[in-house]
Amino acid sequence: MKRKVIVIGIGAGNPDYVTVQAINALNQVSVFFIPNKGTGKAALARLRREICERYIRGREYRMVDFDTPDRKKPSSDYSQGIEAWRDEVEQVYERLLIEELGDDEEGAFLVWGDPSIYDGTLRILDKIRSRGNFELEYDVIPGISSVQALAARHKVALNRIGESIMITTGRKLADGFPNNVDSVTVMLDAQNAFKSVDGEIDIHWGAYVGTDDEILVTGKLREVCDEIERLRNAAREKHGWIMDSYILTKPEAFGEE
Amino acid sequence: MKRKVIVIGIGAGNPDYVTVQAINALNQVSVFFIPNKGTGKAALARLRREICERYIRGREYRMVDFDTPDRKKPSSDYSQGIEAWRDEVEQVYERLLIEELGDDEEGAFLVWGDPSIYDGTLRILDKIRSRGNFELEYDVIPGISSVQALAARHKVALNRIGESIMITTGRKLADGFPNNVDSVTVMLDAQNAFKSVDGEIDIHWGAYVGTDDEILVTGKLREVCDEIERLRNAAREKHGWIMDSYILTKPEAFGEE
Repeated sequence: MKRKVIVIGIGAGNPDYVTVQAINALNQVSVFFIPNKGTGKAALARLRREICERYIRGREYRMVDFDTPDRKKPSSDYSQGIEAWRDEVEQVYERLLIEELGDDEEGAFLVWGDPSIYDGTLRILDKIRSRGNFELEYDVIPGISSVQALAARHKVALNRIGESIMITTGRKLADGFPNNVDSVTVMLDAQNAFKSVDGEIDIHWGAYVGTDDEILVTGKLREVCDEIERLRNAAREKHGWIMDSYILTKPEAFGEE
Repeated sequence: MKRKVIVIGIGAGNPDYVTVQAINALNQVSVFFIPNKGTGKAALARLRREICERYIRGREYRMVDFDTPDRKKPSSDYSQGIEAWRDEVEQVYERLLIEELGDDEEGAFLVWGDPSIYDGTLRILDKIRSRGNFELEYDVIPGISSVQALAARHKVALNRIGESIMITTGRKLADGFPNNVDSVTVMLDAQNAFKSVDGEIDIHWGAYVGTDDEILVTGKLREVCDEIERLRNAAREKHGWIMDSYILTKPEAFGEE
């Protein structure tokens, strides 16, 4: 038994972020697997629908929605709980590929942003392939990630000249500004971790970047952080979810030439 | 006087990486400014030509090639030399926009990969705008960067679960594996800096990723580093230039679940 899948990065928010490679892939897929999960589910569903309708031409395809198990609450043995949960998720994907896809069909997972940046699909497929219960072949198509969309909308580089780029999570940022970069890009910050950052820092923040609901704020972190918190709360209330990210830069970044 | 420019990320290597947004932008531009510089100049020229021919429909446009000043050799006052050089570069761009673009025309810079990742165009335009000699308006269109292409072709994520992504240069890597990540992606390594990295490390390396000349190598760093060095030298000799990048991962990255 053999299964063939394409993991397609569809970009972050704007249907115009889709690449020609992704459009070609969309037009060779028979089955789209749609995980029923995550923040911004409705927005992703809308983007997916818009992309399929706009770019797929003269082909029949079907959508298979599927539920993934809920993430376990941290227990006394946290890491074991996570492991069991991941195992369940992999089984769901494995069953799906076996049952919903024919030998002669190609399936696809449409990933918000880029499949290589904070997305779990590749790891799940790698695990399934390692189990070896069936032959699994898959390709990956890169997409415009939300941090690239953010940088483009703010018209700034992610790196200082010759320096490193760091992309991190709100949880990691809460431990402090990284010691080896002067600029850091933060995704997945549910807790307003930027409020814990001290010092002279510039922020370029954006929510729903690339969509009609886009909000952008730029300024000195300490001057705009309350406004960003307020905007986040209001936007989360209005839309039911928020997807935002930001770049923090030590101001020498602009002075040092 | 007013000038309008679009900085278009055209992706790294494969003309299919171009986004719909980039194609739309290509079709509203009258003048393409082509800096005559950098490694892989011929490859970029080829990609640019292919992209313009394939995607621009029913429009007249012109290409303006321009030379940029040579980078100064490090002198006794290194940073002043760099500053004077950057100043010269900005003046070249400024003159170009004034002389080669009309008030009613839109110009474009086509950037390999993504304009926000290790590319200087945005900084130059920001500086010109700050000088205020004329009104400069510009937009930025993100593109698929070479690190995303690399990760996609190797079918791996750039981050470990919940951990940071770091993208750095060969020069920085030569100072040692960063202390706060377990995975690092390296671009712009002219000196085989990966050879200086000790310990149990996996490498995913690629050159000319996304093109017909693509070479990929995966393995334990200490087992494949000589092969990679040999392949780099041979490829540089054959093509006259090389553009490569790699992901270094501590192996726990795959064990830790």
